[in-house]
Amino acid sequence: MSADTKTGLQLRSLIKKSGDLEISLVDVPTPEPGPDEVVVRVEASPINPSDLGLLIGAADMATAKASGTKDSPVITAKVPEAGMKAMAGRLDESMPVGNEGAGVVVKTGSSDAAKALMGKTVAMIGGAMYSQYRCLKVAECLPLPAGTTPPEGASCFVNPLTALGMTETMRREGHKALVHTAAASNLGQMLNKICLKDGIGLVNIVRSPQQADILHKIGAKHVVDSTAPTFMEDLTNALVETGATLAFDAIGGGKLAGQILTAMEIAANRTAKVYSRYGSSVHKQVYIYGGLDLGPTILNRAFGMTWGLGGWLLFPFLQKIGPADGAKLRQRVVDELKTTFASHYNKVVSLPEVLQLDHIAVYAKRATGEKYLINPNKG
Amino acid sequence: MSADTKTGLQLRSLIKKSGDLEISLVDVPTPEPGPDEVVVRVEASPINPSDLGLLIGAADMATAKASGTKDSPVITAKVPEAGMKAMAGRLDESMPVGNEGAGVVVKTGSSDAAKALMGKTVAMIGGAMYSQYRCLKVAECLPLPAGTTPPEGASCFVNPLTALGMTETMRREGHKALVHTAAASNLGQMLNKICLKDGIGLVNIVRSPQQADILHKIGAKHVVDSTAPTFMEDLTNALVETGATLAFDAIGGGKLAGQILTAMEIAANRTAKVYSRYGSSVHKQVYIYGGLDLGPTILNRAFGMTWGLGGWLLFPFLQKIGPADGAKLRQRVVDELKTTFASHYNKVVSLPEVLQLDHIAVYAKRATGEKYLINPNKG
Repeated sequence: MSADTKTGLQLRSLIKKSGDLEISLVDVPTPEPGPDEVVVRVEASPINPSDLGLLIGAADMATAKASGTKDSPVITAKVPEAGMKAMAGRLDESMPVGNEGAGVVVKTGSSDAAKALMGKTVAMIGGAMYSQYRCLKVAECLPLPAGTTPPEGASCFVNPLTALGMTETMRREGHKALVHTAAASNLGQMLNKICLKDGIGLVNIVRSPQQADILHKIGAKHVVDSTAPTFMEDLTNALVETGATLAFDAIGGGKLAGQILTAMEIAANRTAKVYSRYGSSVHKQVYIYGGLDLGPTILNRAFGMTWGLGGWLLFPFLQKIGPADGAKLRQRVVDELKTTFASHYNKVVSLPEVLQLDHIAVYAKRATGEKYLINPNKG
Repeated sequence: MSADTKTGLQLRSLIKKSGDLEISLVDVPTPEPGPDEVVVRVEASPINPSDLGLLIGAADMATAKASGTKDSPVITAKVPEAGMKAMAGRLDESMPVGNEGAGVVVKTGSSDAAKALMGKTVAMIGGAMYSQYRCLKVAECLPLPAGTTPPEGASCFVNPLTALGMTETMRREGHKALVHTAAASNLGQMLNKICLKDGIGLVNIVRSPQQADILHKIGAKHVVDSTAPTFMEDLTNALVETGATLAFDAIGGGKLAGQILTAMEIAANRTAKVYSRYGSSVHKQVYIYGGLDLGPTILNRAFGMTWGLGGWLLFPFLQKIGPADGAKLRQRVVDELKTTFASHYNKVVSLPEVLQLDHIAVYAKRATGEKYLINPNKG
């Protein structure tokens, strides 16, 4: 960890018109903080699935090759032609990565608000966190309570606010309980803690008995395994018990979103009194918020006509609810950072280590229970 | 046409627990009209795609067999096991069919409002229209202007209100132009007339050059053929020109809904200034309102995260906008019944003819340009 903050390493992702992805580290000058800004020495930043979209884009990481030196490694990989269309907006532009992180304020601007943060541990959101130093506005920092370490505060925003966004969306759109897929994830565990605490029915869909165990151990009441032969029956029963008509799906591809809508329709019809040729009149909604399976979404449409499927993202949701309600959610995260919103990481890596093929092979899989934390100032 | 209104033929559709569909004609007593009711001799009722859902349900009409007599024919067909789940609510229940129709009031209740309708030609909605006589409330009748025949008034509700519901939904959900699939249909032609009259941009997607011709002849400006090799490019150009971000899809199955969302995303990104890893922030919406292709909907999700797909139905839409706004739409239909909302039929059949295998083979295909009208009192 250098005492010189004038420059710092920053991870960059570049997709060229030729279809080549290039990930590298560049030494960038640290901006001089304006009156209302601070410079943070970033000490912890998670690799979230939402970061991988920018970090590796549509590249096929099975084609990844390492070059460069130990201190200045370079990763290259091929983007399949079919994936290039979605990359059109970022071609030939070297992009910094990392949605959120935490660190210590090492330099401040002249305002009182900025000076008050000197030496404080803060959580941050706003991109370019895979950097040794990050200059940002005071308002973009969330000061953490004394005794909170940067790793404890690194994931203050994306997962906690996404989980809270799900229960908020449920209330605002008139549903009474939730379904969540890839439910044993860090985010899924948080969501269970929130729902248990707030008395919300939650149906957890997992893809193995091991994942079911993780959730049972933290007190989850409804856990169904999509690989079990009785999956549709188990899911329907859980939907009848909870009354869930809203699902958040991290997987996206395959038949799961449609299976959830179908099971919701069967559950609704179990209690319906009159036959309708168009299916039940209960609104059934699935929001896709991730893409663990990048394959096509396949809907058999055996769920009547009263349904919706759509994309869901945290930032448009926060914009919709407005700053006052957003601040309430953030305050809850800070209050419960070491309990409800505690994150667990399997590995802490330096910036050069992010570019090691053996690590890429693990974190690019987006597998539950393989969570990485980057410490850009790790020696 | 019998002068005796005491009983009348009614078409019934029955799906048995055994998986057999049975379509037959039964002689039912005509109800005595209450004070505020009238009896209408039904003379025209269309076979809409929305009627086929109840008439043949999930049955495979390739297995259809005719039995019974000439005057009292019976059709039987097999429902594939995969389709039985969606039929659960109607099993072993003999159901009347026919959403809408028109006819002449032949008997009335004692109220002044009922008596005022005696001898009048009225349009009706409410089911069981494939009947010789239909008893219904005065409020459920739409009296037609003098000089309007029952065939002219037979399709006053489903297609006209669906087409108007599309432009209304566009306005209410903040879009500025529309996309419509299976666009050469009766409904699609109406929608073109509405959009031309109201100055709304409309992108018509058809499945053959012949269908494109139909629309060009009535003045459609944007017609793209999904079977052309340049389809995606043509569609994207039309979306850029019109700014359409809302589509109504009658097809449902296959890749079309996803292709529309993808083209909308490309169109939105053509004018976007900043790259977003989640795609454009323009909301793109497709509503599926029909099922011409009952196969699965396949979404490649190459359209960012700001999108929605859902079912859309006329009656929930009318409930949402309320009776006052609904009445305005109905009045427009009556005012423009012989122009904007004129329907064309290829065949007029009697009730026994509805049960002829050669006719079933045609109307069950749901093909554009093969529209049937039933006259239950045809001699």
